Amino acid sequence: MLQARRFCSSFHRIDNIGKTSQPGDALGVRGWIKNIRKLKNNIFLDVNDGSTAQKFQVVVPKNEKTKALTPGSLIKASGNVQLAPHGHYELHAEDVNIIADGNLTKGFPFSPKQQHAPDYVRDFLHLRSRVDYVAAAMRLRHKAQKALHDFMDSNEFVQIHTPIMTMNDCEGAGEVFTVRPDSEDLLKQMSRPGIPVDESYFDSKVFLTVSGQLHLEAMSYGLGNTYCFGPAFRAENCKSPLHLSEFYMFEAELVHMEDIYKLCSFVENMIKTVSQLISNNCTEDLEFCQKISLGEKGKLDWLQKDWVILQYTEALDIVSKNKKHFKTAVKPDEGFSKEQELFLVDHFKSPVFVVDWPANQKPFYMKQSRSNPSVVHALDLLMPSVGELCGGSLRESDEEILRNHPHVPENLEWYMELRKYGGVSTGGFGMGFERYLQLLSGIKNIRDVIPFPRYPHNCKM
Amino acid sequence: MLQARRFCSSFHRIDNIGKTSQPGDALGVRGWIKNIRKLKNNIFLDVNDGSTAQKFQVVVPKNEKTKALTPGSLIKASGNVQLAPHGHYELHAEDVNIIADGNLTKGFPFSPKQQHAPDYVRDFLHLRSRVDYVAAAMRLRHKAQKALHDFMDSNEFVQIHTPIMTMNDCEGAGEVFTVRPDSEDLLKQMSRPGIPVDESYFDSKVFLTVSGQLHLEAMSYGLGNTYCFGPAFRAENCKSPLHLSEFYMFEAELVHMEDIYKLCSFVENMIKTVSQLISNNCTEDLEFCQKISLGEKGKLDWLQKDWVILQYTEALDIVSKNKKHFKTAVKPDEGFSKEQELFLVDHFKSPVFVVDWPANQKPFYMKQSRSNPSVVHALDLLMPSVGELCGGSLRESDEEILRNHPHVPENLEWYMELRKYGGVSTGGFGMGFERYLQLLSGIKNIRDVIPFPRYPHNCKM
Repeated sequence: MLQARRFCSSFHRIDNIGKTSQPGDALGVRGWIKNIRKLKNNIFLDVNDGSTAQKFQVVVPKNEKTKALTPGSLIKASGNVQLAPHGHYELHAEDVNIIADGNLTKGFPFSPKQQHAPDYVRDFLHLRSRVDYVAAAMRLRHKAQKALHDFMDSNEFVQIHTPIMTMNDCEGAGEVFTVRPDSEDLLKQMSRPGIPVDESYFDSKVFLTVSGQLHLEAMSYGLGNTYCFGPAFRAENCKSPLHLSEFYMFEAELVHMEDIYKLCSFVENMIKTVSQLISNNCTEDLEFCQKISLGEKGKLDWLQKDWVILQYTEALDIVSKNKKHFKTAVKPDEGFSKEQELFLVDHFKSPVFVVDWPANQKPFYMKQSRSNPSVVHALDLLMPSVGELCGGSLRESDEEILRNHPHVPENLEWYMELRKYGGVSTGGFGMGFERYLQLLSGIKNIRDVIPFPRYPHNCKM
Repeated sequence: MLQARRFCSSFHRIDNIGKTSQPGDALGVRGWIKNIRKLKNNIFLDVNDGSTAQKFQVVVPKNEKTKALTPGSLIKASGNVQLAPHGHYELHAEDVNIIADGNLTKGFPFSPKQQHAPDYVRDFLHLRSRVDYVAAAMRLRHKAQKALHDFMDSNEFVQIHTPIMTMNDCEGAGEVFTVRPDSEDLLKQMSRPGIPVDESYFDSKVFLTVSGQLHLEAMSYGLGNTYCFGPAFRAENCKSPLHLSEFYMFEAELVHMEDIYKLCSFVENMIKTVSQLISNNCTEDLEFCQKISLGEKGKLDWLQKDWVILQYTEALDIVSKNKKHFKTAVKPDEGFSKEQELFLVDHFKSPVFVVDWPANQKPFYMKQSRSNPSVVHALDLLMPSVGELCGGSLRESDEEILRNHPHVPENLEWYMELRKYGGVSTGGFGMGFERYLQLLSGIKNIRDVIPFPRYPHNCKM
């Protein structure tokens, strides 16, 4: 239904050939030569067009013209598809033409035959989409975002583009970027009495968002269930393989949500459903990434389990009893270290929700337990290999309790006021999208699951 | 397939009742009271839960409890659905309970019975999702973004999250925002010899993106067709109803694209297909917005036409011959004013592509005509009511020509180098998402099709 008329109908995407062609069909492909093997009468080209990580072989007669083919070059080839002895399709080409020369000897940083280390590949951000596992990770990322949108839409959530520039620093953690126009002339021209010239564009200091949650809540108070899925920012000097300065957050807000266990159940169901969908629709790229990163096909055996839910006190008890296993100290007032998170996951051989946390470890907006005000109805979801994947909570719906919280950030009068007029109970969570991709794919460094990673001392391109 | 288990199965979303219920079915609804009419024995409530702009009536017996109901309050009601005389479903409730009081007399800015002016409603950004046409516009926005993703995915484009923070100012126009960490301590701690302290976080000056195009191209050189759909920024002092400081750009890049007419054809097909889909799937909200904004149902008659393609010289000729109709002067070196764009659309009673522009009016990356280097293969798409909706071009694929362009911005060595190694011809375009929503819905001010508008002197929340 949605298909546009094919504007280049005589050429096929390589990943479609196995799905839509019969042996003997005449067709053409266009792509880059990854590898060349020259035998007596024929030349065998591995050709890639960006649609799949699988090799596609083009067989072409050896002659003066085809002998000149070089790796890296962009070619077009037409002929007939045939089934090769190993069961894959290949193209027996009558004609091969070079569209653009590869020029690999003139400074191209990657060798088509060699598997380069990710740290090396990352030095050439502008060219790395031509590296097979990077391309596979990007296709996986696309299919994962699509599956999330499909799931939320079919469950009748409304996507909200929460603002990137904001006066509010959601959790008040302070690790924010500020924004201002580059032009001093513009700032002067827009200046008004009583407002610092630096802030004259918006009449206030403006930050890059750290979370869309508070804005989602405002929308949910009129629209019902909402979600957002966009960039978020942290100005930290942190070079860990699990952190970026610019990353993507998936966040959802559910109305009439008054039970942290129901919220856990939604999160579990969402992650299982979406992961299963990705695993079905993107099998080849997913397994390709897993093999490169883990040396084997990943198991995702957490898809089949019932996930564990622990009270914070129970989780702390288990961690405390096993403190001899940890390099990091157990600090009851600071939550768990990554090592301790992974221990809990391993202990239960299952993802683990930790719920009902000490209020003093969590932000101001989380809902106080009505039976024990020192506890808030928060959840952390701990997963294999990445540790914390989601954080969420019921939101404090009582305006009085909110106003009396000792750590309410500035400029949030509007947030208090939401509760005043026919306020609705909500709860929600956020999931780091890149960590989710790392969980699925096994890719070790977060910088390799995002097209253009930004981290301390690095904002290339 | 994607449906999660319903976590609140006894309550129905109001927009689903007509689709899934039979007269006599027992069910519950939860929502806000928009209006109350008290008759002799019964009370009639208009209830809204954010799922639809249509009124849904709950009929409840008059008694001490129900007499206390007030507008704005959040209620839950259960009973049986019945067909009302006018053919719509209504709920005959046995029981109605207040979940939260509306408190509308304590400062709520909107009257449930009154249609407030958009300028007034916009002053209360945090509460405006409770206003029916704002909620309808947000649901329309959600369905429109979903339709775009669906179309691109089914046409095998890969979505790329192009970076928000970048060293590159795509078109070199200079109307950019700069970004830096808020913390002076962090900047000092990260400072390195030879780098200004202000820039120590990334070791360079960093901007908010104005376009993802150049980064898309880098990805298309390995992945084939790509697109992006995310926020873009302009630091202009412009308060027009068609401009925002933070807005959403949809951009696509197509490989093996060597014909500007083919690119026009793709754009036309995409906009028609996606618009038809939205028109089918979101009829009620679309017509609701059109009625509020235009006073009548919109026609979208451009869906049925073959769109016109004009050479720039032809378009200029028509405009010049009709200059007596314009308040604005015809300036052959500066393109067309909005008034002139709308004249061309009206002249042909059709959307108009203007292609093949004077090179000196367009950015450095557009492809020179090989027969006339003073012309570039650019396109502007002009639509009714909004004027320019899309801008695009073939991209200059010749490294030499690119390097010799007099206006190449700084820091783009990587962009030149893309062409060097097996470069592929690409072409693409960008579409302002908010303008597209204005085109569909008739909503006059761009600030009302985005949840949290940012414009000069305004960055509330």
